[in-house]
Amino acid sequence: MTDYQQLIERIYHETKDFAQQGKVASYIPALARVPKDAFGISVVTPDGKCYCTGDAQQPFSIQSISKLFSFTMAYSKLGVEIWDRIGKEPSGTAFNSLIQLEHEHGIPRNPFINAGAIVVADIILSNFSHPKEDLLNFVRELADDQNIRFDEEVALSEKETGHRNKALAHFMKSFGNIHNQVDEVLDFYFYQCAIAMSTEQLAKSFLFLANEGTNSYNGHEILNPSRAKRLKALMLTTGLYNESGDFAFRVGMPAKSGVGGGIVAVIPNVLSIATWSPALNPMGNSIAGIEAMERFTTYTGKSIF
Amino acid sequence: MTDYQQLIERIYHETKDFAQQGKVASYIPALARVPKDAFGISVVTPDGKCYCTGDAQQPFSIQSISKLFSFTMAYSKLGVEIWDRIGKEPSGTAFNSLIQLEHEHGIPRNPFINAGAIVVADIILSNFSHPKEDLLNFVRELADDQNIRFDEEVALSEKETGHRNKALAHFMKSFGNIHNQVDEVLDFYFYQCAIAMSTEQLAKSFLFLANEGTNSYNGHEILNPSRAKRLKALMLTTGLYNESGDFAFRVGMPAKSGVGGGIVAVIPNVLSIATWSPALNPMGNSIAGIEAMERFTTYTGKSIF
Amino acid sequence: MTDYQQLIERIYHETKDFAQQGKVASYIPALARVPKDAFGISVVTPDGKCYCTGDAQQPFSIQSISKLFSFTMAYSKLGVEIWDRIGKEPSGTAFNSLIQLEHEHGIPRNPFINAGAIVVADIILSNFSHPKEDLLNFVRELADDQNIRFDEEVALSEKETGHRNKALAHFMKSFGNIHNQVDEVLDFYFYQCAIAMSTEQLAKSFLFLANEGTNSYNGHEILNPSRAKRLKALMLTTGLYNESGDFAFRVGMPAKSGVGGGIVAVIPNVLSIATWSPALNPMGNSIAGIEAMERFTTYTGKSIF
Amino acid sequence: MTDYQQLIERIYHETKDFAQQGKVASYIPALARVPKDAFGISVVTPDGKCYCTGDAQQPFSIQSISKLFSFTMAYSKLGVEIWDRIGKEPSGTAFNSLIQLEHEHGIPRNPFINAGAIVVADIILSNFSHPKEDLLNFVRELADDQNIRFDEEVALSEKETGHRNKALAHFMKSFGNIHNQVDEVLDFYFYQCAIAMSTEQLAKSFLFLANEGTNSYNGHEILNPSRAKRLKALMLTTGLYNESGDFAFRVGMPAKSGVGGGIVAVIPNVLSIATWSPALNPMGNSIAGIEAMERFTTYTGKSIF
Repeated sequence: MTDYQQLIERIYHETKDFAQQGKVASYIPALARVPKDAFGISVVTPDGKCYCTGDAQQPFSIQSISKLFSFTMAYSKLGVEIWDRIGKEPSGTAFNSLIQLEHEHGIPRNPFINAGAIVVADIILSNFSHPKEDLLNFVRELADDQNIRFDEEVALSEKETGHRNKALAHFMKSFGNIHNQVDEVLDFYFYQCAIAMSTEQLAKSFLFLANEGTNSYNGHEILNPSRAKRLKALMLTTGLYNESGDFAFRVGMPAKSGVGGGIVAVIPNVLSIATWSPALNPMGNSIAGIEAMERFTTYTGKSIF
Repeated sequence: MTDYQQLIERIYHETKDFAQQGKVASYIPALARVPKDAFGISVVTPDGKCYCTGDAQQPFSIQSISKLFSFTMAYSKLGVEIWDRIGKEPSGTAFNSLIQLEHEHGIPRNPFINAGAIVVADIILSNFSHPKEDLLNFVRELADDQNIRFDEEVALSEKETGHRNKALAHFMKSFGNIHNQVDEVLDFYFYQCAIAMSTEQLAKSFLFLANEGTNSYNGHEILNPSRAKRLKALMLTTGLYNESGDFAFRVGMPAKSGVGGGIVAVIPNVLSIATWSPALNPMGNSIAGIEAMERFTTYTGKSIF
Repeated sequence: MTDYQQLIERIYHETKDFAQQGKVASYIPALARVPKDAFGISVVTPDGKCYCTGDAQQPFSIQSISKLFSFTMAYSKLGVEIWDRIGKEPSGTAFNSLIQLEHEHGIPRNPFINAGAIVVADIILSNFSHPKEDLLNFVRELADDQNIRFDEEVALSEKETGHRNKALAHFMKSFGNIHNQVDEVLDFYFYQCAIAMSTEQLAKSFLFLANEGTNSYNGHEILNPSRAKRLKALMLTTGLYNESGDFAFRVGMPAKSGVGGGIVAVIPNVLSIATWSPALNPMGNSIAGIEAMERFTTYTGKSIF
Repeated sequence: MTDYQQLIERIYHETKDFAQQGKVASYIPALARVPKDAFGISVVTPDGKCYCTGDAQQPFSIQSISKLFSFTMAYSKLGVEIWDRIGKEPSGTAFNSLIQLEHEHGIPRNPFINAGAIVVADIILSNFSHPKEDLLNFVRELADDQNIRFDEEVALSEKETGHRNKALAHFMKSFGNIHNQVDEVLDFYFYQCAIAMSTEQLAKSFLFLANEGTNSYNGHEILNPSRAKRLKALMLTTGLYNESGDFAFRVGMPAKSGVGGGIVAVIPNVLSIATWSPALNPMGNSIAGIEAMERFTTYTGKSIF
């Protein structure tokens, strides 16, 4: 049996210096001042046991990892209908590209590029009466932790600088694929990206994906097993922007990353894992995080392949 | 315990009529005259047991499935060096597109689009003394079957009509990413695509991927476990052209398809499976084959996710 | 000597039925209700003589023709500096495409596609104290006519439906190529597009381009001869969106079109000409207008080539 | 009246040092060894008078300027039919790009990018019994000079290195837009590009375009006035690859350039002009040549605008 505590401590020491090769996201001040050497790793097993090392209790901006939460909310509500408005294919281009949108008439390639997540935000606005509260409650229940909050400073900064996202939203609205007001959709989207969580909270909150879709803490079915499987397939093919193929290749786990430096991943029936190191590679993914994830599957010999 | 024989017979009957919705590939005569209602399914388990139904012993043109064989040969020879000349990412565009090649200076996105497979063919020409024989012997050993042959008629037809592939090869040569003569590279490539195999032979030949890289019939390590894992990750993200994401989503198995109507897939440590139904959807993948694969993972509850 | 009056009447009758092959722009109500068979032609010679036929005194929405006015205003103010923020090349793509913008980091290909005109609007906002009034006065002086107005209904409708233009503006702002608030830039832009003018007013207002840059009515130099030449070159290569090459080929005059159905063109030192017929071809240009222009240069044997 | 001799000598001295900023084409040895400071200017007026300075009698490889000759030959033979197989629009992309071809199903944007010229070569092969001789005779007649030859060394070098052009040809053949064998089409194309001419010969050979389509030396109509006009329009919008707009803007003459460093241009009814300076800018056009042309239209005040 694997001693996860010992293993993640070993990996922590082996990979922490990789952060030196990357750059902390600097497009908003609140992200830019995060210390480059922050580093946390958390593993949670289906029995609820949690193994942590480093800055695993320190909340950080989860950014695009929030797309997993909002998509799960929308998917559990709409089911297959959601695919009328979003695709399921890798994009082959950068996370905030408008090119494919133009060729494909405003239908984003998948829910994990920005355009797709903005459509998901639009769906949530149309289907939930208190979108922000409902999202926060959803996340808190998944993580079994009431202390999860929006970082208001981050949310406001995103709003001021988010011209690329505004462009995406207006562009899709011009094709009829955004139903609510662009400002309202983006207000929700910027708040969603500004959720602050620690690796421990993240690993706990995605344990349901290692448990066939059911919340281990309270037994609620979040997604049925078939949908949970489908969501993991999507994560594998599209979860790390246009580095998804490489991550699947090196690491072999369904995962999702964010420019705050977090990555979460799962091995079905085995565990969920989260890492946080804010220094990013040119694709926008955490350098030390990917290294740690790769060693984790190599050392344990466990992956989905 | 699953009764695979009963299961594939049930699936055979449930899905055979899906072929009516598709079109048999018609760009060369030898493919065009394949009967639309041909249909075979084969499953092989690690103990070597083989379950077959329908036209499972009928050889057909494996076409792009051959890219898995040639890539495995080249990868086992070159190791990581191979990634200097080919990427590991989904392409986001059609299997024979030149667009990405232009933006990315002649480096194909992955080994399973045509451009990538042509680079692999070039690598084989540079590294093996009798490329065609060596490939055929490699396939025969994997399938534990000496009766596998090239279909000469198909190979010659491809040569006459393959202007798109000639364009790809010359284009990459203009970037320096083809080292041998274009005619020689394509001669090998067209032969490779013209290998004729049955679903039984295919399922047997890819059993090594369900066995951590080792040939179950003779114990030879084809790829080490880490490389076998990596190859399966590549298959999952890129094995069905720009329908790879959707296939991962619906089916959840690493797989590879060909325009001859074949699909092979594996579940690590569990089984390999092959289907053949020549009627294709607009993406170039077998309609009944995908339906059968989806039901297989749904009914067994087994997939990689 | 050409009898222009007789000539344009002949052309009027020969080409008016071409409008039946096209479609009136329908994206805003005020444009959609323009009668399909409205048709006017006006020619003005350097001595100020005006030849008119059909609905030549009927004001219509000049739409993209306004890009010529705003660009001339900005160019006469900034001179060569303007080329730091806009290119001079044909775009090769549709008038409202975002694709090239992404590849070229927010610098529009030329001032006559929407993105370029929005940058021009931004420049005007930064350089004129009363942008709308200043523009209207500029146009009135050029046309020697104080009765030119904004159509408020059109301006407001544009604002409500202009999501594609909002996308363009935010996209360029994300690259730093829009300096003012997007809403203010677009407010000006939508008003500019909503100027209502007749063909007579249009032909008069662009006479300065047939007069080496100098207003024939009051002797003011609008652009020096070198800049006037350059502007005409731009019109020839980019004035009719991605139909510019074809128009140059068929007609051989520097020109600018709008989705309101207007086209203006000039032959240096010879004349300016304007046509209006609201039915458009799929490129967004007036069908009868192009036909009339082509016959005009064919029958007179005059063009720039 | 302009003293052209004095003018081109002045321009020669003012612009010869611009060559230092560029690079001589080096993709084949015969081009690479051309001295960087070679520089010639020739002007020919409708009365046949020729003004020359510098290396105006030195033959060089005309390369893409030959596209004007072959297109004129094909256009005079086929007339409007030619537009079924080639477009008339600027490409917006580099001269040897395959991207647009893929989106537009093998129809090149215009006859002056490589793909378009290869289609023209294919048309010539189908319509002339001795293509190479017929082309050479056509050029000799236009230039009123029997001493014009192919440079065999250049033709053979092109053949060995022309993988990009082979890619273009096979790609278009895959769409059915090349009717002859690719090797034969390219053999002609490479010879065509290898015609060696001096600026004097070039300026003389394109005098017919300043003379409404009629050869001034023998009175033969090469193109009727309408087609001559159309060809000049095409040259203006597409003659300098994706620098065409900028050249029209700065210079204001219909023109065609080649990577051998030559440029030819005409002012209808006024003159033809040719320059040669082999150092190229990144767009593949002669730096000193463009400078000289710009000064020529500025100092004379003559252009088409």
